[in-house]
Amino acid sequence: MTGDLLIRSVRPWPNSLDVPAVDVLCTDGLVASIGADVDAPPGVPVVDGAGGVLLPSFADVHAHLDSTRLGLPFRPHSAGAGLGELIDNDRRNWRSAERGVAERATHTLGLTIAAGATIVRSHAQVDVDSGLDKLEGVLAAREAHAGRATVQVVAFPQCGILREKGTADLLEAALRAGADLVGGLDPAGYDRDPVRHLDVVFGLAEKHQRGVDVHLHDAGSLGAFQVELICERVAALDMRGKVTISHAFALSSVDAERQRELVDLLAEHDVAVTTVAPGVREPLPLRQLRWAGVRLGLGQDGMRDYWSPYGNGDMLDRAWQLAYRNGFRQDALVEMCVDIATRGGAAVVGRPHGLTEGSPADLVVVPGDTVTAAVMDRAPRTLVVHGGRVVAAGGELV
Amino acid sequence: MTGDLLIRSVRPWPNSLDVPAVDVLCTDGLVASIGADVDAPPGVPVVDGAGGVLLPSFADVHAHLDSTRLGLPFRPHSAGAGLGELIDNDRRNWRSAERGVAERATHTLGLTIAAGATIVRSHAQVDVDSGLDKLEGVLAAREAHAGRATVQVVAFPQCGILREKGTADLLEAALRAGADLVGGLDPAGYDRDPVRHLDVVFGLAEKHQRGVDVHLHDAGSLGAFQVELICERVAALDMRGKVTISHAFALSSVDAERQRELVDLLAEHDVAVTTVAPGVREPLPLRQLRWAGVRLGLGQDGMRDYWSPYGNGDMLDRAWQLAYRNGFRQDALVEMCVDIATRGGAAVVGRPHGLTEGSPADLVVVPGDTVTAAVMDRAPRTLVVHGGRVVAAGGELV
Ligand SMILES: [Zn+2]
Ligand SMILES: [Zn+2]
Repeated sequence: MTGDLLIRSVRPWPNSLDVPAVDVLCTDGLVASIGADVDAPPGVPVVDGAGGVLLPSFADVHAHLDSTRLGLPFRPHSAGAGLGELIDNDRRNWRSAERGVAERATHTLGLTIAAGATIVRSHAQVDVDSGLDKLEGVLAAREAHAGRATVQVVAFPQCGILREKGTADLLEAALRAGADLVGGLDPAGYDRDPVRHLDVVFGLAEKHQRGVDVHLHDAGSLGAFQVELICERVAALDMRGKVTISHAFALSSVDAERQRELVDLLAEHDVAVTTVAPGVREPLPLRQLRWAGVRLGLGQDGMRDYWSPYGNGDMLDRAWQLAYRNGFRQDALVEMCVDIATRGGAAVVGRPHGLTEGSPADLVVVPGDTVTAAVMDRAPRTLVVHGGRVVAAGGELV
Repeated sequence: MTGDLLIRSVRPWPNSLDVPAVDVLCTDGLVASIGADVDAPPGVPVVDGAGGVLLPSFADVHAHLDSTRLGLPFRPHSAGAGLGELIDNDRRNWRSAERGVAERATHTLGLTIAAGATIVRSHAQVDVDSGLDKLEGVLAAREAHAGRATVQVVAFPQCGILREKGTADLLEAALRAGADLVGGLDPAGYDRDPVRHLDVVFGLAEKHQRGVDVHLHDAGSLGAFQVELICERVAALDMRGKVTISHAFALSSVDAERQRELVDLLAEHDVAVTTVAPGVREPLPLRQLRWAGVRLGLGQDGMRDYWSPYGNGDMLDRAWQLAYRNGFRQDALVEMCVDIATRGGAAVVGRPHGLTEGSPADLVVVPGDTVTAAVMDRAPRTLVVHGGRVVAAGGELV
């Protein structure tokens, strides 16, 4: 599934207006050389980057492909307030979608790839209502786009593990059916028993040798306590580098000293963090996390679903959102958001990523004078390359 | 400058997916009738709304057309931290722009109109460095688009009034040269003497019978004090309905009781408020302001200038930003943001606006299943109508 390709006329990040465009040769799915006037080896396809900005491709490391309604008629938001009501609202409505999970997930994954992401980590809800139906839909979407993106799937207990009998068995069945990671959800705040919830999650992870990705909206000292519980299990099971905490609102809802302790704890246990750049919640301490060496990625979250009307699969738009929400004006800070949306997410899923020779040829070309200008313009992507093959051009899949 | 027009196939707000499209007849620049299968009177141009959502046109009531660099090569952000440094950075750089103020302002006003705004209030910086050069540029842009939008211009003392000798005289010269309103800037926090600053602003307003629009970033009790000073002058000079406070961060940085007092004070004196939906600052109490009857509008602020890389002239995008930053998921709340961006801004500048018969035929048609869907999609505008004439279509000026 890897290829050779010569991309003419791109300006690799870091760039500026006065740096001339170069060519990028990809061989066997890897970046082979970057330079001026590279000769096209015989038989290698040549595409035109039109002088655009060259970035590593985007990584959407927190998606919910199973719930999306992108491409379907718009439905007004019908949920009341609170996580429980959002969960119930989805349960009331998802079966009545005009298309099945596989078709919806495939459509939205296609939009995501066309917008430049070739690395995706999607949660797939597993619960006693939907069984493995949603997981199977997401796995089908991954299969449909197998040559276009690297997709990880998390078996996600959206309705808790302990609240409904049978969920733990379904999670195990999901791992057997093809899920890559075990998920979790607010072990204390929603599932009401943080230790037993995490014991199920990490027990399955150890038994099946899989990674973990826990949704942790719980904030303040309760959230901080669960960050500690997670890190204790990482140490006990030697799972450094295999665990992610999503949202991690605890980090931005404790005082500065406690925040520093938690950031250090995450770094020490190599626990990754993902954010979706929420509008109201206090932003994560992005710089502190990166300075400490914590792997930090960005995601879309749900996309136009029964939870929220936001989200469109466009990770450049989401990088804009992260920069805007943090009030970043300096180019270095805006570009840090792009780094989180590209290399940061790749590190979360454990893939090498970058623009150096030998990196996977997973690349995106976007019009713009500079990276920051490209973030502000959010123009359709000129080219999206995965494994040395063009998978999208001009904003459309090829 | 007004015309007749028949718009076929639009779905006026409030709408839903199952409401059939209707036609809108505009006569002498006003909405004459809305209904099914309206006959086209002889000689009246007919355009196709393609079943899109019909809204009153957008109103950008806080723009800085004089500083924009949209359309020029991107320049990295070069300012240090703080308002003083932002002001100095602009002063160091603005003369070196590749195009003059008039050309830049005209370009960006065109983008703003093409994106659906036909009501614009722009500040124009007046100071001892630039004299009236920036004002004249904005006035030229207004003239260039005279048939496409209603534009108010504020003589804006961006560098304070008291800090540099001669600014008050320049403000008066600006009013004589065509500015519509007198501006102000952080009378206490930046100009260091709130009473004397406001006395100059309101003195000029009274002498020349003009409105006032004061930038007030000052927060907390210092900002609240200046809201009171402004309202005292509104009462003394009988200027109800003529004064706007821009940003008004004081409202979201005091406790709930003080906030209620300030909102009531604004309502009692009919002082309008504008916001630009900033990313980091606490959002304004949108619902409280509207419940109290305070006129509340939305703006772009500076657009890709020496202050900030954000802003693109697209008020639908800015309405999205307002909704996102407030965490609004319910359609009624997202649509409230659109109302602020359309009718709210029109009320700020004192124009009637709406979709009822007799309203000015200032309209925008945007693709989308519903208003909320249109906000989320932010597709190019199908049609923009000003005074019963099509001024933009398919996202481009006509
Ligand atoms: Zn999630
Ligand atoms: Zn301003």
